Order: sequence, then C-alpha cells, then structure tokens
Amino acid sequence: MEIKVLKKVMSANDAVAEEITGFFNEKGVFAVNLMGSPGSGKTTMLEKTIEMLLPDYNIAVVEGDITTTIDAKKLSRFPVKIAQVNTLPFGGECHLEASWIKDAVREFDLETIDFLFIENIGNLVCPAEFKTGAHKNILVLSLPEGEDKPLKYPLAFQVSHLVLLSKVDLIDVLDYDVKKAEENIEKVHPGIDKIQVSSKTGKGIQDWKAWLTEQRKLLFDN
Amino acid sequence: MEIKVLKKVMSANDAVAEEITGFFNEKGVFAVNLMGSPGSGKTTMLEKTIEMLLPDYNIAVVEGDITTTIDAKKLSRFPVKIAQVNTLPFGGECHLEASWIKDAVREFDLETIDFLFIENIGNLVCPAEFKTGAHKNILVLSLPEGEDKPLKYPLAFQVSHLVLLSKVDLIDVLDYDVKKAEENIEKVHPGIDKIQVSSKTGKGIQDWKAWLTEQRKLLFDN
Repeated sequence: MEIKVLKKVMSANDAVAEEITGFFNEKGVFAVNLMGSPGSGKTTMLEKTIEMLLPDYNIAVVEGDITTTIDAKKLSRFPVKIAQVNTLPFGGECHLEASWIKDAVREFDLETIDFLFIENIGNLVCPAEFKTGAHKNILVLSLPEGEDKPLKYPLAFQVSHLVLLSKVDLIDVLDYDVKKAEENIEKVHPGIDKIQVSSKTGKGIQDWKAWLTEQRKLLFDN
Repeated sequence: MEIKVLKKVMSANDAVAEEITGFFNEKGVFAVNLMGSPGSGKTTMLEKTIEMLLPDYNIAVVEGDITTTIDAKKLSRFPVKIAQVNTLPFGGECHLEASWIKDAVREFDLETIDFLFIENIGNLVCPAEFKTGAHKNILVLSLPEGEDKPLKYPLAFQVSHLVLLSKVDLIDVLDYDVKKAEENIEKVHPGIDKIQVSSKTGKGIQDWKAWLTEQRKLLFDN
C-alpha cells in the first residue's frame, strides 16, 4: 500500500512573499526586513543606515506602523522613496503581510532602487511569523530589553540572518552582560551573524554597512 | 416598521473574562494585568511589588510567556503562588486569552489570595485586544522605548488604567523628555493615572503600592 505523505502547503502569505522576492531579484533590489520590539531603535538605525548608504546607492523604504506616520516623517528629510503601510484598516495587525508589501512596492520604480528597507511593526512575536519577501531579516535587539529575550522570543531570532545589538552605548549604565546575550542568541540560532551598534556613538555602523553591501554583492554581484 | 438594531455580541473571550472577574469579586481577589513591550521591566517591577506587598497580603501570579519559565523562576524565591501559562502549545500567541487564565487560576485557592498579578506576554499590541478578567490593566512603558510609543500603540494605553513609566533612573543618560511622553499618553487616554518608577532607585514604588492598595480598598472596602 502506498502511503501518501502530505507536504506542507505554502501559505497564501508565503506565496505572495515569494512573488515579491521575484520582483526584487529581477530588478536588482536588495531587500531587508527590520524587526524588533517597540523602541528597540529600528527607525534611528534606519536613519543612520540611509545616511551612510545614500552617497552610493538609491534607497526605498516601506514603513510599517499600526496607526501613525511618525517614523515615515522622520525619514522624509532624506531623498528616499517611502511608502507607508498602516495596519489599523486591517484590524490593527501587529505584523506586515506580504500582500500589503506587494501593494506598497508598486509605488516604487524598482528598476532605480538598490536597497529596499522594510521597517516592520514594533513587535518581537508576530512579524517573525509572516514572510515579507525581503532577502534578509534583521533583528534589532536593544540592550535595555535584557539578555534573556532570545530565549523568550526564539522565533524572531530563528528566522533572522543578523542581530543588530543596539544601544550598546548604554552598556555600563545598564550593567549589561553582552556575552550572556550573545550566548542566548547562539542557543536559539547557532552561527547567526551579530553586530554591536550604537546610533549615538557610531559604533558598529561601518560593520553594518559592510555586511549590507557584501550581502548585496553576493546576491547580485555588482 | 420596527427596526432591529444589532448589538455588539460579546466575544467568547470577553464572556470568559467576565466570568473570571466574577470569581475574583466573590473571593475578594484584586486582580491586575501587567502589559508592556519585551524588556519594559514587567518582571522586575513585579518582584519589587511582591516584596513590598508580602508583609501584609497574600499574592498569586499568573506568568504568561511564549515558551520559557524564566520569569516564573525569578519569582519562585518568594512565598507566592505561581501558575505558568505558555502560549507555544496554542500557536505561540502573543497575548493571554481569558480561557487560559481561567485554567491557571484553578491552581489557586482564591479564598486565600488578596492580590493576583497577571504578567502578560511582552507585547505592545496583542494583549490589549484580549480581556483577562483582571480588574485593572497596568501598562509598563520604559524610558528607552522613546516618548512616541503612546501615539504608535494607542490601544494598549486606551485599555489601561495606569501607566508605570519605568526605568526613570535612565532619564539623564537617555535625554528623555518625560513631559513629552506624558503629553502623548494624555493624547490617547486623557486623565489616565501615571506613576514614574525605578526598580533600581526605588523611586515611585511607594506611590505604586498606595495606588494598588487604594484601588483594592475601593473595590472591596477592606
């Protein structure tokens, strides 16, 4: 008797995410999905990232937020394309779904864009469950959140390709144990890349730039 | 012709939450639901709260977490009853549902309990959408999260009765504008109670104790 093994059916969201990745690959857009808790420093890090990439690259941003355009407004001082996705009309969801990102990137002429950043909803749980179509997921984990967060919210770390350990300028004030935090990250995602960064002091920002441009080069070889 | 106006039907979760509140009222248990971002300081604040209430009151805790018992273990040094709810078996949900809390409080002899604390999942979105049966919702908002969070995550503030502005010992290091943060809280929930606290320096802890005992007294008059 033949036993039929059911394969995992691709979810509707995954299918749209794959389609989006296809657009990006065709147009040479390197896409990055920034995730992290509320206040972990995603927007500030994005501002620093845009500043350092702008001389050499064209950039677009999909800003995810439940109800405001606060973050998009912060970025509007830069010559970058910005599309805002608010989830309040979609039930105030705590993540971005691929179909909304697909609609958002329709606003851009992808042909002209080198880097696309998706700033996901501030949340350490839900965004990890929904693919966005980005090539890489970056988790921004700030020091004030404590060393135990990787153990408590493992999925977000498991689906990510790099952890930006942010606000490291607070290390002495907080008596933070970076080694412990990095061990906890390793426990849930062995071998994942990690960079310590501070928007305030500039620490790690060049390493982050090198990571981004290297990853883009690996994908598109240009 | 008579026009039938459909009333909002109580959700299954709300119905269970109301049932739980009934248990609490009958047994004289004052129940508090702690919400906040990952790393906002909920557990540390709960440790301080237990320390200051223990001489005079009996305490129980429902610890919500996705997958670990890290927080429950931190509290296990106290003579308090603890029930752990992990949401991983329920799809890794980012909130606690009333039915899980109902099961959890079955572990306790409610007759003997004065204060019950529910530590919700670290999340500024989902927990606000699900009633727990607690009498009061407390939002723990830490300074490192930034002043704009009330505007970006309004629902959590709107369903809360008190904001504990935590980690105020970091005020100078962060160059944080407390007035701005409090204005933003007022914008989304005018008149809500606010207390600035620090687990490190002890600031505001007595005010928080006074708030808790006063609220309990208002409800049970003892």
